[in-house]
Amino acid sequence: MNAEMIDRSKELLNHSPLNLYKPVEYSLGIRGKRLRPVLLLLGYNLFADDIEKALPAAMAIETFHNFTLLHDDIMDNAEVRRNQPTVHKKFDTNSAILSGDAMAFLSYRYLLECNTGNISEILELFTKTAVEVCEGQQFDMDFENRTNVTESEYLEMIRLKTAVLLACSIKSGALLANAAKKEADLLYEYGINLGLAFQLQDDLLDTFGNQEMFGKKIGGDILANKKTYLLVKALENSTGNVKKELLEWIHKKDFFPKEKIDAVKNIFTQVNIKEITQQKINFYFQRSTDLLNHLNIDKKTKEPFYSLGNQMLNRKN
Amino acid sequence: MNAEMIDRSKELLNHSPLNLYKPVEYSLGIRGKRLRPVLLLLGYNLFADDIEKALPAAMAIETFHNFTLLHDDIMDNAEVRRNQPTVHKKFDTNSAILSGDAMAFLSYRYLLECNTGNISEILELFTKTAVEVCEGQQFDMDFENRTNVTESEYLEMIRLKTAVLLACSIKSGALLANAAKKEADLLYEYGINLGLAFQLQDDLLDTFGNQEMFGKKIGGDILANKKTYLLVKALENSTGNVKKELLEWIHKKDFFPKEKIDAVKNIFTQVNIKEITQQKINFYFQRSTDLLNHLNIDKKTKEPFYSLGNQMLNRKN
Repeated sequence: MNAEMIDRSKELLNHSPLNLYKPVEYSLGIRGKRLRPVLLLLGYNLFADDIEKALPAAMAIETFHNFTLLHDDIMDNAEVRRNQPTVHKKFDTNSAILSGDAMAFLSYRYLLECNTGNISEILELFTKTAVEVCEGQQFDMDFENRTNVTESEYLEMIRLKTAVLLACSIKSGALLANAAKKEADLLYEYGINLGLAFQLQDDLLDTFGNQEMFGKKIGGDILANKKTYLLVKALENSTGNVKKELLEWIHKKDFFPKEKIDAVKNIFTQVNIKEITQQKINFYFQRSTDLLNHLNIDKKTKEPFYSLGNQMLNRKN
Repeated sequence: MNAEMIDRSKELLNHSPLNLYKPVEYSLGIRGKRLRPVLLLLGYNLFADDIEKALPAAMAIETFHNFTLLHDDIMDNAEVRRNQPTVHKKFDTNSAILSGDAMAFLSYRYLLECNTGNISEILELFTKTAVEVCEGQQFDMDFENRTNVTESEYLEMIRLKTAVLLACSIKSGALLANAAKKEADLLYEYGINLGLAFQLQDDLLDTFGNQEMFGKKIGGDILANKKTYLLVKALENSTGNVKKELLEWIHKKDFFPKEKIDAVKNIFTQVNIKEITQQKINFYFQRSTDLLNHLNIDKKTKEPFYSLGNQMLNRKN
């Protein structure tokens, strides 16, 4: 798999207005993990070999994902993404809104290049997923003003915000290769579980990761009072003075960032949050592996998925 | 034609998160002219009678249009739309960004309900149009910092920002009813010319209209130094002290709004801008009528388009 194959962002710079397409190219040009297009191509490759036919769909998924990052970064007022200034910081907010909009539609344009008989089914899945991702982002924002978010509310939020797009990527790849409904649906469930594990890892890395390798400021979630799995479980599991101290930090207006990050991390450690989160990650990874085992395809063909899972389990960014 | 038939926004309030869907419902609930869905249904009705089949597409077009208004109003920092607070003022900017995003995808969801054989062609037209509308909005923003915008640059900008969506509406209706390519393309051209006339009228009404009937603050374009047809032509046609005064008003930072509006209107009057703009409006209306005359369908069937054109020529909002 070659990253260049799914990155056609440079060609956008031949179009005007440049002020619209430069931020798009900037956003797509900064190499992310490209997890979603890779999942789509792997999903396709389970059932067919000519993966060049799935490249426009892979580009569509990556473009859509970057669109969500652009707009989320405005809403979260984030300054750094993948070790680079976010689009609204590098350009301006209006550019980030409008270029993001253009990317949403460009993702449909790429998808429509896939001229398969079941394109309507794929477009319906993609559109349903896109609406769900918006719902997930709204739940995430709603949670900011609450301290009583339950574990199940949190898991539903990350299912919508993160997992459905991973699941959509794999299933779209399978559908493009004309997989049977039963297999495509199983791969969707696989993607959901992989996505839940992936987002829980993200929560863990944001607090306990290595800043340079992670590509974002460590502790950003703590400063923003993000209702991550870590915070939701810490609020659930802490009592007495520990819980009181945690709530005080959440409501405190004046503080040095490092001071708050250290204090909240310390509380997390007191209530074993790192271990609890890692257990949950392992649980969803195991479920995804079980589902993969059930997929009626020879093990050698499925091998790339197993190795991707192992890479993800040990990821640092 | 019943407005309720194309407004299914109330049903969105049954979905969560409500903070995502309330702004969508608010935006779709404020009655606009519904020009685009009407054009789509009229386009369909030229070739087929069962217009209920085109209703989801009509809803799609109106939802897309409202999405663009939501995001444009953020970018322009507009406070009033259709005599009501804009979405980002009524709710907040993050809600307006995210609810707008959801509307973009909801418009695809509605469109995909149209289960016709040529749905790919309609989706391609819709997607191409959506990208063009973003391009038009970017050109419009780029023009804000320039005083040398030419008439042809301006006309290309409004073609992208306004006319292509009207053209797309009519052509989509025709395609849904299985019109031949030649007729669908002619209706597209008709829509472009109608759209150019429509936007020029908008420019005229923003400066010389009646505030209560227009639904937006009169003079908003003047205060924002919007490169409307009026200002582009005034910069082109004025000389000496008149041009100097106009440029001074454009660059002035401190002024009473009413003072600037009155002064610029006064300059417009000195260089006959109202008449020049009205001539251009009449030119594009006439071209649209000529195209309609060429459409090989009996005059009685085309009658709703002629009467719509006449209504538009005399519109006050």
